[in-house]
Amino acid sequence: MENVFEMRPIGFVKTPYSETKEIPKGCGTKHEAEGVIEIRPDLAQGLTDIEGFSHLFVIWAFHKAEGYSLVGTPPSDNRPHGVFATRSPRRPNPIGLTVVELIAREDTRLRVRGVDMLDGTPILDIKPYLSSIADDRLKRGWLAEAEVRQSK
Amino acid sequence: MENVFEMRPIGFVKTPYSETKEIPKGCGTKHEAEGVIEIRPDLAQGLTDIEGFSHLFVIWAFHKAEGYSLVGTPPSDNRPHGVFATRSPRRPNPIGLTVVELIAREDTRLRVRGVDMLDGTPILDIKPYLSSIADDRLKRGWLAEAEVRQSK
Repeated sequence: MENVFEMRPIGFVKTPYSETKEIPKGCGTKHEAEGVIEIRPDLAQGLTDIEGFSHLFVIWAFHKAEGYSLVGTPPSDNRPHGVFATRSPRRPNPIGLTVVELIAREDTRLRVRGVDMLDGTPILDIKPYLSSIADDRLKRGWLAEAEVRQSK
Repeated sequence: MENVFEMRPIGFVKTPYSETKEIPKGCGTKHEAEGVIEIRPDLAQGLTDIEGFSHLFVIWAFHKAEGYSLVGTPPSDNRPHGVFATRSPRRPNPIGLTVVELIAREDTRLRVRGVDMLDGTPILDIKPYLSSIADDRLKRGWLAEAEVRQSK
């Protein structure tokens, strides 16, 4: 078995961010920026009924990332953490994941709120967001600790 | 620019499901099954500090899926919907996404609850689950409608 999976863009996203440094980062960042996901016309039918969902998972490619680091210091902390415990772009597989709010669908264009990717980022998949983990069940590890340290 | 992204497994997951038909599906399904994600030894350092998180996003490959359908009827409804509005395995890019609860880490093994993938499924990425969308903000489109129809 050839364990390589080839992924191709299902579309691209327009966002306000032409450079990585423009993307808000760090503790307490709220992503409220609007963007437009443009799906390939040949895949338009795959969007049927998507407008009924308020939120979507968007899976995308860190297309500007080169290589990976197993440990790194994220913008929200001054201590290093493992790549799988962060949202670092420099991952073994350069996959990004963002939850966005669906504002409107116009044919193959999805207007969404909450984008945090570069303008022109290739989109690999979209899935409906169906349920949440209740806040009182969530533990957020090093991030919660970093927030406490930075609030002192 | 060659718009193909090659993804390779960062590990594999052991689950109770050797066949697709064994995986619980449909309205109201709760995924409580336990599994073990085994990360490649060369990537072990990438797990540093992951044990502080209660929940993880697991991104994986539908390695048994062949081709895709833009529209299909999911197990939770008797009406067809677009692939991007469902969790169908037959997607343009065969990417799966599951939120699991992290029970324990033992070196490169993550014991987790909530697996819904086949035994031996290749894992492409793991990310910390950091926050939820509040239930009162969520609209779940056709799925909510199907649940109402089926409860009548």
